[in-house]
Amino acid sequence: MSLVAWDDIASARTRISPHAHRTPILTSSSLDHLCDAQIHFKCENFQKTGSFKFRGAFNAVTCLDPEARARGVYASSSGNFGQALALAASIHGIPAHVVMPENSNPLKVAATKGYGARIIPCPPTHRGRTEVATRIGEETGAALVHSHDDLRVIAGQGTAAAELIEEASDLDLLLAPVGGGGLSSGTLIAARHLSPKTKVIGCEPAGADDAYRSLQEGRRITQFTPSTIADGLRTPLGENTFAILKDGIDDIVIVEEHEILDAMRIVWERMKIVIEPSSAVAVAPLVGGKIDAAGKRVGVILSGGNVDFSVFFDDLDSRIAA
Amino acid sequence: MSLVAWDDIASARTRISPHAHRTPILTSSSLDHLCDAQIHFKCENFQKTGSFKFRGAFNAVTCLDPEARARGVYASSSGNFGQALALAASIHGIPAHVVMPENSNPLKVAATKGYGARIIPCPPTHRGRTEVATRIGEETGAALVHSHDDLRVIAGQGTAAAELIEEASDLDLLLAPVGGGGLSSGTLIAARHLSPKTKVIGCEPAGADDAYRSLQEGRRITQFTPSTIADGLRTPLGENTFAILKDGIDDIVIVEEHEILDAMRIVWERMKIVIEPSSAVAVAPLVGGKIDAAGKRVGVILSGGNVDFSVFFDDLDSRIAA
Repeated sequence: MSLVAWDDIASARTRISPHAHRTPILTSSSLDHLCDAQIHFKCENFQKTGSFKFRGAFNAVTCLDPEARARGVYASSSGNFGQALALAASIHGIPAHVVMPENSNPLKVAATKGYGARIIPCPPTHRGRTEVATRIGEETGAALVHSHDDLRVIAGQGTAAAELIEEASDLDLLLAPVGGGGLSSGTLIAARHLSPKTKVIGCEPAGADDAYRSLQEGRRITQFTPSTIADGLRTPLGENTFAILKDGIDDIVIVEEHEILDAMRIVWERMKIVIEPSSAVAVAPLVGGKIDAAGKRVGVILSGGNVDFSVFFDDLDSRIAA
Repeated sequence: MSLVAWDDIASARTRISPHAHRTPILTSSSLDHLCDAQIHFKCENFQKTGSFKFRGAFNAVTCLDPEARARGVYASSSGNFGQALALAASIHGIPAHVVMPENSNPLKVAATKGYGARIIPCPPTHRGRTEVATRIGEETGAALVHSHDDLRVIAGQGTAAAELIEEASDLDLLLAPVGGGGLSSGTLIAARHLSPKTKVIGCEPAGADDAYRSLQEGRRITQFTPSTIADGLRTPLGENTFAILKDGIDDIVIVEEHEILDAMRIVWERMKIVIEPSSAVAVAPLVGGKIDAAGKRVGVILSGGNVDFSVFFDDLDSRIAA
């Protein structure tokens, strides 16, 4: 018996469809040429709050029974899930408390606040986050919505792959980045039901390759110091996502930091869309040749587009002032 | 009698439609909220070669009689038109010679070369460009396709506004950036035919406000030293575009450099699409409040998305190496 079934994803679609965007699927002759493949990009960077996280957050909040929901929700998040939960809570008219590491991307902190959440800073460690989050739960009586291990969240994240597979059928490969494993787990469950022959491949930065090592060693690795620009992928797998991925993902591919940057730059320059480093992790194996996609139909989930452009605009500002 | 008529735009559509993208029209609740308006963005950043220029270039090359066309085409261009002409020539299987100022955006030079054109560098002055271009024409026997004053080019550029107005009807305002005036002239002619009540507003950087001053003074100003980040808008109006704009544009609005940057950043961050500074010039009056769009239906032509991201990625590269 699986933790999350196709029916859970189908129900999640019904719940979220009035509020989430059905994001576009883009193709690029330039990228296709470069990778000698037919690539279909599911653009969750265009999703509400700028990432796929809104799907899972909204599904989870909607699933709460009304009495519990009225007391609010809380979560620990490096950024994108915080924004998503904040908006989901705001749509339901309930409070959201988001515990964010002190080294979070300032753009994501500001945006989470902008959607109406209360931000609680915490030390940037797994333990620090857990301790502060536990305290917030006790103090507020709010319901925990775990950013990637909540089964309702996983079901919600699977709706992106479901939409992708419906529109771009007969995919040989389906690539998604792996952080806490919510997106990749949902993607795997959706693909197994809708397109059993599609190989589902998780993509992970070398600087946070806990999922790769966890699956290799057959036990969940949670103690590591992530070092990657892909700020959405620094968290370890959860117990549920580890169980789901262990059970069925076809492969996990590791990419280096320079490959992530190359892929991000190519997507910005050729496709004219803004994707964040975590999204580029799922493009990098194709651009860098780590996956041989020659002649194949490939789906890629571009997970989000929340980039901090400070450096770029500070430079332009100073050049204009000069 | 007008220089370019609606029929010319309609014919251009027939010519270019098998080869040009019908680009999407995007909306953004975030931008709408910020500007208190309903804004429809015509995304020519997604056009082939990354800008609207492909429309005019392809129309002009296709209009040439086959014998003349076989001898090739040439143009002077700071970048986007060069790329467009190169691809248009390549589709027709003929040579393209592009005269580019020495200070052109390196990304645009490389891309123009990438589409198969021969690049001829020239001094970054109006006179230097003209002299080198004249020489190339004499040496090669190729046909000149002027980047913005060729009437076939102007007709081609009008097809973007035609598509926008068809999809987003009843626009109160229609904004386009003004450089050489090809896009704004084509936009004006299309709007006058399809939606006579729509006010057409040209948007120009303060550092290259020759169109504004030309229309104020009733004579075409060609001698000035442009100083703006909007590298596509540094050229003076042509004789034809001056005549067309003088005859009917409702207004020209001037924006400062910091307003251009603010608008560009907001579009990147909120809409997750890459637009170049020249495109941001047509967003800046809305974001900066220079145009009161409250409660109005507004069309904006996002002219292109060819941005040189070197600074951003150099910084990231060095941070990763550290």
